[in-house]
Amino acid sequence: MPVPDAPVTGAPTDPPAPGPARPSRLDPAIAARLRRTADGLVAAVVRQHDSGEVLMVAWMDDEALHRTLTTGRATYWSRSRREYWVKGATSGHHQYVRSVALDCDGDAVLVSVDQVGAACHTGHRTCFFEELPVTGAEAP
Amino acid sequence: MPVPDAPVTGAPTDPPAPGPARPSRLDPAIAARLRRTADGLVAAVVRQHDSGEVLMVAWMDDEALHRTLTTGRATYWSRSRREYWVKGATSGHHQYVRSVALDCDGDAVLVSVDQVGAACHTGHRTCFFEELPVTGAEAP
Repeated sequence: MPVPDAPVTGAPTDPPAPGPARPSRLDPAIAARLRRTADGLVAAVVRQHDSGEVLMVAWMDDEALHRTLTTGRATYWSRSRREYWVKGATSGHHQYVRSVALDCDGDAVLVSVDQVGAACHTGHRTCFFEELPVTGAEAP
Repeated sequence: MPVPDAPVTGAPTDPPAPGPARPSRLDPAIAARLRRTADGLVAAVVRQHDSGEVLMVAWMDDEALHRTLTTGRATYWSRSRREYWVKGATSGHHQYVRSVALDCDGDAVLVSVDQVGAACHTGHRTCFFEELPVTGAEAP
């Protein structure tokens, strides 16, 4: 059994877990599993369901996750505008939700979608179009 | 030209962007692009470089990103332990970095790695092994 090197949820040194930032209809059993940022959010990683391409990362509070699960349309919390946004509502670049998975420590969800058009507001298919220089590659 | 429905960085309503939480050797040109959480972090989405499988999400401050780019070994900031951790250092489940991409608004990086063994501390290959119920699927 390997020794885990990932943070273990619930360790004595954990800071108090922030609760929901806003009222939500999310299933309490799911809400109890979330480990939120200080502003009450989890990271939502969005991928194209069939190709697996990673399209974007956005943020969800409890209610955004609830809406995503129950409407089948990817819904996020805008940190800058402080409001919910349904992907594609103004751009037409809809995200139809095929599945959602929660990660082991509850601070991220993986949303598999059928993406219409570009995921990125710049017009790129994916938001991850800028490579950073890796200067210290080490072979396995 | 579609109307963007993603948050636009630098909008007048943006809260002040948090700076680096800790001293860092990260290239200032990259650091200037980061849009951090209140505790100075960006989300790091980790995928297997060849299959594209999404393995995990962890968190990086500026210095963790610097170490990832310059050592070729995925390095994160542990929110619970409040320290850097090199993936695999204790578990042996190393992540050899093949490429890193920054997203359009600077709050997430996509790290493509060669993952040795399981990415998840539970022993699963991926941390996203728990499906949530999608009850409102809407067809495109």
